[in-house]
Amino acid sequence: MSHNTFGHLFRVTTWGESHGPAIGCVVDGCPPRLALTEADIQPFLDRRRPGQSKFVTQRQEADAVKILSGTFEGVTTGTPIALHIENTDQRSKDYGEIKDRFRPGHADLTYELKYGVRDYRGGGRSSARETAMRVAAGAVARKVLEGVTIRGALVNMGGDAIDRTRFDWAQVDQNPFFCPDAAAAARWEDRLTAARKSGSSLGAVVEVVAEGVPPGLGAPIYGKLDAELASALMSINAVKGVEIGDGFASAALTGEGNADEMRMGADGQVLFGSNHAGGILGGISTGQPIVARFVVKPTSSILTPRQSVDRFGQEVEVLTKGRHDPCVGIRAVPVGEAMLALVLADALLRHRAQNPDAPEKARLPRN
Amino acid sequence: MSHNTFGHLFRVTTWGESHGPAIGCVVDGCPPRLALTEADIQPFLDRRRPGQSKFVTQRQEADAVKILSGTFEGVTTGTPIALHIENTDQRSKDYGEIKDRFRPGHADLTYELKYGVRDYRGGGRSSARETAMRVAAGAVARKVLEGVTIRGALVNMGGDAIDRTRFDWAQVDQNPFFCPDAAAAARWEDRLTAARKSGSSLGAVVEVVAEGVPPGLGAPIYGKLDAELASALMSINAVKGVEIGDGFASAALTGEGNADEMRMGADGQVLFGSNHAGGILGGISTGQPIVARFVVKPTSSILTPRQSVDRFGQEVEVLTKGRHDPCVGIRAVPVGEAMLALVLADALLRHRAQNPDAPEKARLPRN
Amino acid sequence: MSHNTFGHLFRVTTWGESHGPAIGCVVDGCPPRLALTEADIQPFLDRRRPGQSKFVTQRQEADAVKILSGTFEGVTTGTPIALHIENTDQRSKDYGEIKDRFRPGHADLTYELKYGVRDYRGGGRSSARETAMRVAAGAVARKVLEGVTIRGALVNMGGDAIDRTRFDWAQVDQNPFFCPDAAAAARWEDRLTAARKSGSSLGAVVEVVAEGVPPGLGAPIYGKLDAELASALMSINAVKGVEIGDGFASAALTGEGNADEMRMGADGQVLFGSNHAGGILGGISTGQPIVARFVVKPTSSILTPRQSVDRFGQEVEVLTKGRHDPCVGIRAVPVGEAMLALVLADALLRHRAQNPDAPEKARLPRN
Amino acid sequence: MSHNTFGHLFRVTTWGESHGPAIGCVVDGCPPRLALTEADIQPFLDRRRPGQSKFVTQRQEADAVKILSGTFEGVTTGTPIALHIENTDQRSKDYGEIKDRFRPGHADLTYELKYGVRDYRGGGRSSARETAMRVAAGAVARKVLEGVTIRGALVNMGGDAIDRTRFDWAQVDQNPFFCPDAAAAARWEDRLTAARKSGSSLGAVVEVVAEGVPPGLGAPIYGKLDAELASALMSINAVKGVEIGDGFASAALTGEGNADEMRMGADGQVLFGSNHAGGILGGISTGQPIVARFVVKPTSSILTPRQSVDRFGQEVEVLTKGRHDPCVGIRAVPVGEAMLALVLADALLRHRAQNPDAPEKARLPRN
Repeated sequence: MSHNTFGHLFRVTTWGESHGPAIGCVVDGCPPRLALTEADIQPFLDRRRPGQSKFVTQRQEADAVKILSGTFEGVTTGTPIALHIENTDQRSKDYGEIKDRFRPGHADLTYELKYGVRDYRGGGRSSARETAMRVAAGAVARKVLEGVTIRGALVNMGGDAIDRTRFDWAQVDQNPFFCPDAAAAARWEDRLTAARKSGSSLGAVVEVVAEGVPPGLGAPIYGKLDAELASALMSINAVKGVEIGDGFASAALTGEGNADEMRMGADGQVLFGSNHAGGILGGISTGQPIVARFVVKPTSSILTPRQSVDRFGQEVEVLTKGRHDPCVGIRAVPVGEAMLALVLADALLRHRAQNPDAPEKARLPRN
Repeated sequence: MSHNTFGHLFRVTTWGESHGPAIGCVVDGCPPRLALTEADIQPFLDRRRPGQSKFVTQRQEADAVKILSGTFEGVTTGTPIALHIENTDQRSKDYGEIKDRFRPGHADLTYELKYGVRDYRGGGRSSARETAMRVAAGAVARKVLEGVTIRGALVNMGGDAIDRTRFDWAQVDQNPFFCPDAAAAARWEDRLTAARKSGSSLGAVVEVVAEGVPPGLGAPIYGKLDAELASALMSINAVKGVEIGDGFASAALTGEGNADEMRMGADGQVLFGSNHAGGILGGISTGQPIVARFVVKPTSSILTPRQSVDRFGQEVEVLTKGRHDPCVGIRAVPVGEAMLALVLADALLRHRAQNPDAPEKARLPRN
Repeated sequence: MSHNTFGHLFRVTTWGESHGPAIGCVVDGCPPRLALTEADIQPFLDRRRPGQSKFVTQRQEADAVKILSGTFEGVTTGTPIALHIENTDQRSKDYGEIKDRFRPGHADLTYELKYGVRDYRGGGRSSARETAMRVAAGAVARKVLEGVTIRGALVNMGGDAIDRTRFDWAQVDQNPFFCPDAAAAARWEDRLTAARKSGSSLGAVVEVVAEGVPPGLGAPIYGKLDAELASALMSINAVKGVEIGDGFASAALTGEGNADEMRMGADGQVLFGSNHAGGILGGISTGQPIVARFVVKPTSSILTPRQSVDRFGQEVEVLTKGRHDPCVGIRAVPVGEAMLALVLADALLRHRAQNPDAPEKARLPRN
Repeated sequence: MSHNTFGHLFRVTTWGESHGPAIGCVVDGCPPRLALTEADIQPFLDRRRPGQSKFVTQRQEADAVKILSGTFEGVTTGTPIALHIENTDQRSKDYGEIKDRFRPGHADLTYELKYGVRDYRGGGRSSARETAMRVAAGAVARKVLEGVTIRGALVNMGGDAIDRTRFDWAQVDQNPFFCPDAAAAARWEDRLTAARKSGSSLGAVVEVVAEGVPPGLGAPIYGKLDAELASALMSINAVKGVEIGDGFASAALTGEGNADEMRMGADGQVLFGSNHAGGILGGISTGQPIVARFVVKPTSSILTPRQSVDRFGQEVEVLTKGRHDPCVGIRAVPVGEAMLALVLADALLRHRAQNPDAPEKARLPRN
């Protein structure tokens, strides 16, 4: 129920504002006796970190994570794990001029209307800086998901989609866009450079995939795996849509075209001839790869002036200076992976609670 | 946390299987002193009811709802409201042949793998019959949302989208598809008739809209209004994607194109020049209409035989006889409306808890 | 979070008023594949049922429970279990005269102040009738707790305590008080007869004990087993105090006197020389019997007139006619057992979620 | 549901071990626009702080609290409030010898059995050090409870109760025991000095009282105010029992003796002739003072050797050196107050959610 807590059994509570002294989170419900040190978490933060290419914000943050509780001698103890990152490059002066003005497309206005007060520096609580803690917590979640591989990629930038036949996970770390198609990455580089120079921004689509997920995860009716995933991904800053498997393309399919046919594999495992379902049927994992996509709108911070209003009810013009990402979708890739990890870790714990012998028994015949 | 409970403060717990003696729900947390009788609920159930046209399942259910608790002399008392519908047309014999076989695209397999047991009659718990209780609970939620209008429409069937310039809410109840474009409805009639006769099925996209929503609803970071809505809509049977406002089309927009410019209206209300955001910024309602869409995959119950497996780990062929909807998207329209109502009622209660003077104060300047 | 839901993973949502058409509950999160029929539940309801001796209310209720969902062919399916009892003897006329008057010690006043409306018939939602559903749900919880024995007894009536050296579980079903000391039962019979005849009532203390509970149950810091149990027992109507193990007597002990010394038993099990702790240390079960007591105040429904006020803000005199229990503590015994069962079933599921190899590994040395 | 989160709408998640680098908490759901700085919190921490008299542990902790998020320019913003205290005096060497041995009466054994790993230094997570964060969070809760006065006192030490006729709140801060009866304080001083010198310890009873609580708080059936309070107080280290109002003494009362008669006061307020109920009827506040007591067992850390076992399953003798409180009940007083504040703040927010016009309307006649 908590506004700032994600998950039911594997739970993450984040705190912190963009320009406060620090940000952090508490990971509660993590199983004991898992090896965990800062070195397990830091690489994921480094992937999300700003200032790494000209295509992401030039804010310089070390994002050095510290574990303040919940581990002892390098293993988790089952008690709450507090993770902590100091904010080192806050440069508050950039934001003074939007103290009283609401940037179109930002949360400035709605925070003001909801709370009647807001930390306007750098977006305060609504800043994407919060997602650093999701990535940190996601790294802990991966520890729970032994045997599961979670990866993400940018599959569309500014309406220009990758060629799916060229999809290559090995490419993802070879370009600054997490793009799995080298040809698309080359096109995007030109396009994003142009957008950045003109003070504009571009939208994007991120795809996240989990392989090795055991069948049986998901808690119908209202804790369905896809519903949890939809909530998780939609909660990322600037996300406006989520789809599973064929997603919106399903509207144009027939029942025959959409059916994933089944046959038997070794050891009672069910194999599928296709994965229109994205690895989830009836809100429960099938054993196939979980495939989800989410769209990230173009950054609202742009140099073109826009009509807006201010705190005093006056009409004003707003343009956003400061250091911003011309395509926030890029840095959303590791965040999307993290959310997928959090959803799966939580689903695994819920599943174990109700089904102590599972998922090992998820075979046919079941007994 | 409960698997079968939706919502945090305005909470609905549903129960019941397709072919059990009854289905029902408990609505907990409803404010007291709201007028409520069965007559407030029944019309919404009647809209969702099967057997009303040749385009939906011919199962005949009266779906007559009874209020068993939580009201006294026609008003809510603040105690849990139990709603109850008897199942009258169960015709179990139709389902005997899929007792041991898993229909591709259905939840048959995953329920078996997860639970090791399932009520196979009519889909049991995974049946869309459960959504009748969502519609009933949604009718109660509407009572909480005084001044808010919630409507839904089918905007795409089988890949054939409506013409948005012809969108007319008055059309929605003039055709069996909840279609707001009379020309599209005519085309769909032919198409769906053909699909039905050939034992095939079609996908669809539903749009739901809430007008009159006060600004300030939504509980960042993990109770954002759009995240709650994504979870709510994705939890509906056969839904594979959810989007808010411009949704996936945002990928092709620039920051300038996506910005909803603002100006001041009367009484300190903020007005917008466009609604790319779908009424939600930073996870909080802006005061504009909330606009969401979700895609419903084509019904998996089709007459064309498909390769599958059975409970014993044998490979088999499956085809689905019985009474089915050739386009389940149609009956998802009132369900989508209900989920939107449930999300908003819950968000309103959460908002009041933390902001006792809101949403009346959501004006500029705020004090 | 839900006001009318108890538990986190094994969850019970109750509904219904004393004089409505029915009462019921939904048990969600129950593991699948447990044998369960009405015959497993009814005997527990029969123990709590009114009308069985002159010492409990003469209201005649069959309290015949029906399972409406969640089982198939005699076993649980992992889906929500709806339990339903029709109210057959409602006799509303008894309550007309307290329609507008608040009985001292009852919830009449506070429901009016909180909700501004109430079903005054028989206490409405605040009636102890609600506890029938706790007993029914508790019977389901017992199914989850294989190997655990849960029993209760009345150990004090009207200030007259049993002689602990005469404690005999076999006596509990031999008298109308659930008294484990035959001599005390005889004394209580006289005393309660006198109280009943004079229209007065008596307080009582109930003790509940669970044997066979594995070590390791309980979820520190805020889901400690004793904290959950305190909440569970305090939520029973008319309960004003809860204690674990030595409870309030601990105030007069020294550290030496309070320490439960340990030694090793067979198979790595830890044995204890005493059980001052009541089977719980640090909020986690030790493997010893869980022992809790709770005090039930004397029934507020008495024939002696008391000064009170009415809905209109007028001062009035109130006396309570109708059929009442002269010692509500008696019928609280099966309710206390049920709450203990619910707490333990929930704790077991929580434990499994975080510790998949437990509680089987709760031995020394642990690995 | 979270193991380390307390509350539903006003929620506190604590983290940290006794000898880790820091302890902290996140307060989520706090209303915006409340004045809050460290100076509002520190005085409450100072009251609980160790090292202040010879009757509490000589560990020296500054317990200097920092607010790391959730406020801006001295007021709360509605976002999560992170509170942080560094551990400065950890002196781990004291604890080496109990690394593998389980102290009777402590949580050492049960943490080992539950988690299979534990931070043995100073009790790790099970240490009463965690309660510092409850006190800090409680100070924030008091901000929400405008007009409510929350106080606590020690009313029994080692079986020696205060004289209720001498109860004087002004005495509470005049002695090192939070004792409201100067004569009892003098007796306790001798007694506790003797216990301390002999390496023994004493039990105690704490009473906490809230005045000015509006009627109507509490969320039946399972969120009753007394049930929440029972859970809150029982979750404090070493607590073995909780009672409300007359508590266990109710067992010896008759219905007449227990009834709190009512009359009308000014402005439609209900007044009571007595407060046997401790300010709660039917789980809802009456407007009278909320009165609760809890018993704290004698400290288990004593110098007398006790029989125990170790991690390897060997029988051993244990005695506890180090710095300990001879009566942990003393420092439990500010913790009890804090838990009462947390329960009431949460109940107030829940009440507002369901009843937007309350508690102002809790008058007779209600409209």
